[in-house]
Amino acid sequence: MNTIPTYSDIEQAHQLVQKYAHHTPVLTSTSINEIVGGNLFFKCENLQKVGAFKFRGACNAVFSLTDEEAQKGVATHSSGNHAAALALAARMRGIAAHIVMPSNSPEIKKKAVAGYGANITFCEPTLQARESTLAQIVAETGAIEIHPYNNFNVIAGQGTAAKELIEDFGEFDIMMAPVGGGGLLSGTALSVKYLIPDCKVIAAEPAGADDAFRSFHEKKIIPSVNPKTIADGLLTSLGERNLAIIMQNVDDIVTVSEEKIEEAMRMIWERMKIIIEPSSAVPLAAILEGKVDIQNKKVGIILSGGNLDLGKLPF
Amino acid sequence: MNTIPTYSDIEQAHQLVQKYAHHTPVLTSTSINEIVGGNLFFKCENLQKVGAFKFRGACNAVFSLTDEEAQKGVATHSSGNHAAALALAARMRGIAAHIVMPSNSPEIKKKAVAGYGANITFCEPTLQARESTLAQIVAETGAIEIHPYNNFNVIAGQGTAAKELIEDFGEFDIMMAPVGGGGLLSGTALSVKYLIPDCKVIAAEPAGADDAFRSFHEKKIIPSVNPKTIADGLLTSLGERNLAIIMQNVDDIVTVSEEKIEEAMRMIWERMKIIIEPSSAVPLAAILEGKVDIQNKKVGIILSGGNLDLGKLPF
Repeated sequence: MNTIPTYSDIEQAHQLVQKYAHHTPVLTSTSINEIVGGNLFFKCENLQKVGAFKFRGACNAVFSLTDEEAQKGVATHSSGNHAAALALAARMRGIAAHIVMPSNSPEIKKKAVAGYGANITFCEPTLQARESTLAQIVAETGAIEIHPYNNFNVIAGQGTAAKELIEDFGEFDIMMAPVGGGGLLSGTALSVKYLIPDCKVIAAEPAGADDAFRSFHEKKIIPSVNPKTIADGLLTSLGERNLAIIMQNVDDIVTVSEEKIEEAMRMIWERMKIIIEPSSAVPLAAILEGKVDIQNKKVGIILSGGNLDLGKLPF
Repeated sequence: MNTIPTYSDIEQAHQLVQKYAHHTPVLTSTSINEIVGGNLFFKCENLQKVGAFKFRGACNAVFSLTDEEAQKGVATHSSGNHAAALALAARMRGIAAHIVMPSNSPEIKKKAVAGYGANITFCEPTLQARESTLAQIVAETGAIEIHPYNNFNVIAGQGTAAKELIEDFGEFDIMMAPVGGGGLLSGTALSVKYLIPDCKVIAAEPAGADDAFRSFHEKKIIPSVNPKTIADGLLTSLGERNLAIIMQNVDDIVTVSEEKIEEAMRMIWERMKIIIEPSSAVPLAAILEGKVDIQNKKVGIILSGGNLDLGKLPF
């Protein structure tokens, strides 16, 4: 079996995804462009169903299953957005979703997953606890595990956001996305390199959770240990499949400070009037911190999601 | 001179406005539709330039001036969004904008107006102080006054939001907008009745600032006295020209509680991931309060703006 989605796989994913997902708007801001000196196009996956790009991958994974595979349901562990995405996609297909969530997930994400009718099991917030709890549930139910990012169909699904952005707005000089487990980044990088081979793909990551940055430069997976960042969607380690794609198709990964993440987040809230979670602000933070040269360049940025507790804003 | 814009006036306004303004996205929310039992389409003027529909009217007014009229600049009094809109439109045309703002305007709105390079004069937060200060500035500078809502070109410009919504999404059963001075409502009502004569136009207003509700039912302008509401864009009294259009083209005006305005605002923030100011939440508040029967109906809602101090949220 192929391990890396071809362009045809991403096209097939798009055929499925567009039946269920929003074709999200792309926003521009004259004032932010004036501040940074480039021409930025924000693909608003915070306005996607479940408030995150994750719905694309989950949707492709769930609807790519055969009826026989699908009948025992799907299962995953996730700190939030993938959980909600898988729960909704499963509900749309009329099958069960079994979700393992770390006990410290944001309240809004717990509420969302419960609202989509998933069976939730809470566990300690460690990768070991998440994996062992999930293994037990899969053994008990026979559900198919849909990994949040280290999954062929999930990666192909996440690639559809960049594909739409390019189809709607033409060529870009640079495409940016945040990186956590690498699902969005690997899918984005594939779509970009298939459609615009000359476009640079640059990922941004919090300095306090810089495992992808280190993995990229050391060319092997460096696990994420005790990450500390407000960007709660970017805490996990890269997947094997994701790293392979990233090594081939991503031009650079840069790190940013917490201060700039908060500044970028507030800038997008105030000037663009959209709600993004901290993880979404990381690419703009990298630009504000001078880590990426975007002077007079046309830059696409995937805003990954908009789920956060409104009662716990950093400002 | 005609006092009521024809459809041709609104079309001409749209020709001008679309050169400078965003064609704003329209969002839908499955979860809000499930809660209310109708099919809602939100026209996101909070994502318009300056964060409010006001840019459409200001743009039409400024670019409709002859060069001779324009040379001495434009002037207005406004609690915020119209001020920012006029300042930006004037800057785009390369002329001066003289803005009278009440001293209690939200900080974010003061900052925005200053950022667009307008000449600001602060005054006491009363209609009398606003009008006398403006009269003095007009006398001194020779600038043309652009009233925030009681102005032919402003009304025609505001009508372009509903026109776009209908052109993008076809016929509607009901169209809703908030009502303050009546600029958005009168423009919206005209576009709707020209394009879909059978569509009901229903306005919503805070019960604590119900002058438009009373004016509509008593068929004459009842001034807004000591209005008390979180919806700071809806404090002003109706204009004469606006009331005339509203009496002819609006089917009903309903009032809503502060509690429901906050609930609707939070619902849109949480579920749609966009930032709206309290005034924008008033139509959905009316639906949540059961004031409008939208069961199984296709409803357009103009979200008027997204400017508010992030440090002063009601939640």
